[in-house]
Amino acid sequence: MAMDAISVIRTKRDRGELSDEQIDWVIDAYTRGEVADYQMAALNMAILLNGMNRREISRWTAAMIASGERMNFSSLSLPTADKHSTGGVGDKITLPLAPLVAACGAAVPQLSGRGLGHTGGTLDKLESIPGWRALLSNEEMLHVLDTTGAVICAAGDGLAPADKKLYALRDVTGTVEAIPLIASSIMSKKIAEGTGSLVLDVKVGSGAFMKTIEDARELASTMVGLGTDHGVKTVALLTDMSTPLGLTAGNALEVRESVEVLAGGGPADVVELTIALAREMLDAAGVRDADPAKALADGSAMDVWRRMIAAQGGDPDAELPVAKEQHVVKASAAGVLTRLDAYDIGVAAWRLGAGRARKEDPVQAGAGIEMHAKPGDTVTAGQPLLTLHTDTPERFEYALQAIEGSYDIAAAGTDFTASPVVLERIA
Amino acid sequence: MAMDAISVIRTKRDRGELSDEQIDWVIDAYTRGEVADYQMAALNMAILLNGMNRREISRWTAAMIASGERMNFSSLSLPTADKHSTGGVGDKITLPLAPLVAACGAAVPQLSGRGLGHTGGTLDKLESIPGWRALLSNEEMLHVLDTTGAVICAAGDGLAPADKKLYALRDVTGTVEAIPLIASSIMSKKIAEGTGSLVLDVKVGSGAFMKTIEDARELASTMVGLGTDHGVKTVALLTDMSTPLGLTAGNALEVRESVEVLAGGGPADVVELTIALAREMLDAAGVRDADPAKALADGSAMDVWRRMIAAQGGDPDAELPVAKEQHVVKASAAGVLTRLDAYDIGVAAWRLGAGRARKEDPVQAGAGIEMHAKPGDTVTAGQPLLTLHTDTPERFEYALQAIEGSYDIAAAGTDFTASPVVLERIA
Repeated sequence: MAMDAISVIRTKRDRGELSDEQIDWVIDAYTRGEVADYQMAALNMAILLNGMNRREISRWTAAMIASGERMNFSSLSLPTADKHSTGGVGDKITLPLAPLVAACGAAVPQLSGRGLGHTGGTLDKLESIPGWRALLSNEEMLHVLDTTGAVICAAGDGLAPADKKLYALRDVTGTVEAIPLIASSIMSKKIAEGTGSLVLDVKVGSGAFMKTIEDARELASTMVGLGTDHGVKTVALLTDMSTPLGLTAGNALEVRESVEVLAGGGPADVVELTIALAREMLDAAGVRDADPAKALADGSAMDVWRRMIAAQGGDPDAELPVAKEQHVVKASAAGVLTRLDAYDIGVAAWRLGAGRARKEDPVQAGAGIEMHAKPGDTVTAGQPLLTLHTDTPERFEYALQAIEGSYDIAAAGTDFTASPVVLERIA
Repeated sequence: MAMDAISVIRTKRDRGELSDEQIDWVIDAYTRGEVADYQMAALNMAILLNGMNRREISRWTAAMIASGERMNFSSLSLPTADKHSTGGVGDKITLPLAPLVAACGAAVPQLSGRGLGHTGGTLDKLESIPGWRALLSNEEMLHVLDTTGAVICAAGDGLAPADKKLYALRDVTGTVEAIPLIASSIMSKKIAEGTGSLVLDVKVGSGAFMKTIEDARELASTMVGLGTDHGVKTVALLTDMSTPLGLTAGNALEVRESVEVLAGGGPADVVELTIALAREMLDAAGVRDADPAKALADGSAMDVWRRMIAAQGGDPDAELPVAKEQHVVKASAAGVLTRLDAYDIGVAAWRLGAGRARKEDPVQAGAGIEMHAKPGDTVTAGQPLLTLHTDTPERFEYALQAIEGSYDIAAAGTDFTASPVVLERIA
């Protein structure tokens, strides 16, 4: 059957199912430039509004994987486990998690991205470590993985090029917010990366992409289904992102907090989520009898971290950058902190210089926000609540606008229970 | 308020109403190239699937009119009336209608188009008259109109350029079939043409764009509303297009039939529809006591036709082109012809060379189909049913494929009533 873009668009526009042949053809022809951006934009909008069923999403994902190379870690002696987070504020979990899981006996090939918008990027955070390099060749990546057990680096251009092109188009055509397209975008990259098992951290709340538990659940189960369809053991945790994770948001600030966790300390929520995700990854990879809590306490996770950072050119003992200027936000009243909004804090950290407005912008390593209290904590009037960090103090005012209204303090003695970190598990 | 394409797309994607400012901005920015084709394609698909209300469609139309020049016939002493047909097979009505209405006392500035697909184009038909020119300057057009009472010519590039760009995009992105976009496309051109009143011939049936009476009704009432909103008195007739109009489909063939009508003869359905539309146009233009049937019978419409053709360089007495080759299709049985499918006949005429596959293709002046019977007529087995005409006989086989299954013959004496020509009137 001869294919053309208009008939594929019409099928989805008229609420039909796209055939396997239509999906294979349109992804391939778009990657080759035969289907134009304006045609794919119309198709994306039809998909956003009319949906795709599980077969269509699975085939769409397979076609994106087939548009590029697929990595293979079968030469490793260890089972592989990977984690993907849908992105949140203060979400530095990958940093302690990858070495922790490696210390427990699974190999962790963690291809990560940079931040865009109010959520930070793992590579931006690690680049605040002097000397550390995100860009590795496939051979270098395999070498770091083989010798240290974990690697965190940038994905190469050869993985799912269709997704790269499609994502850029969705970004400028108002078609990002389509669960079939989000799920296939994430999963095509993760499956092409060749991991044997995958744990998804699907964030829910103001600071996350998914604002409601229902949307998060649908995205999570779609992705778990896609992983299963492609032979990757996949589990998802829905986790809270109404408030930032831990006590820091910003690149070097988050590396420092991650190192505290690897040293056996750190904020309770970061430790809890790191261990919960480590257990899921080890379980999915088939590693039994490992004890992530012990690997944090006994320094074995820290050992992997130090070797992994050093293997990518970083100095694990180097001083981390500190921003030139600080500004303290004080609690406006005494009582119990009942809300600290993840989105507002994320936007403020971004405005201070921790994030970028356009892909080509640089980030400030030292910029960001330290939190001195979290929901549930008792505060006194005038105590430091937040410390803002930036190299460019003219940004303080703009950041403070985002912080206005970002927290609530209730009368002392108010009964308040913070949201649990892990909300649901979908497998 | 600062505008950007993504926020406009999101508004419609999320089933919101576009504001006047959003519509004005997006049409203007698209015409200037600031909004990209892929962004407009996504917006068009969102409009197709989520609709626009009357205010939005009206503003969208106004913005397209404002993208170019607007003609003005207020210098004429006569009221102006225009007709637009949504396109059908054998629809040569504009040819006898424009001079007929002029003969009855209204000025008819009829800007027309070329055929694309299975429906013919008025300009292609008139161009089969030796010497006749479709392309006039605004001054020439006004001169022909002023001296003969009617003019049929191509629309200039200056009218609704946003519509021109948008139509080309819709054609390649599967977003043609959206009633708000069809209605605003037609009406922006017609209103920019500056007519005082407008009669719409909305075709319904297999050979038309609108296959059902419900869709035709919605399109017609949307367009009547748009005309009213912009101060143009507008009336619509819904007319049958399940079978071709008249006994010919093809350029010179249809000119010949039109001249027969102007001479007081011609097929009954063509005469009926010409007079019905003439009455509506004259009524809308405020011309009282005119008698179109008399103007056909007494030769006054023919006089205007001859002057109008001559004023545009054509020779009204010239021999019309005849195709080099003919092929006769014979009736397969005796009985009553109960169906002769407009779409199939249109496709066959197009394949014989009467139409074009791409905008830049030439058409054959003599190609097309003569029909020797219409639904309701009694036929004998083996009598000529159709005569196919082409200069390129290798096309016969391809045309005959379209004709296969295009007609039904029921047993003699079967009770059969053909559809009326005019189905409904919407004002």
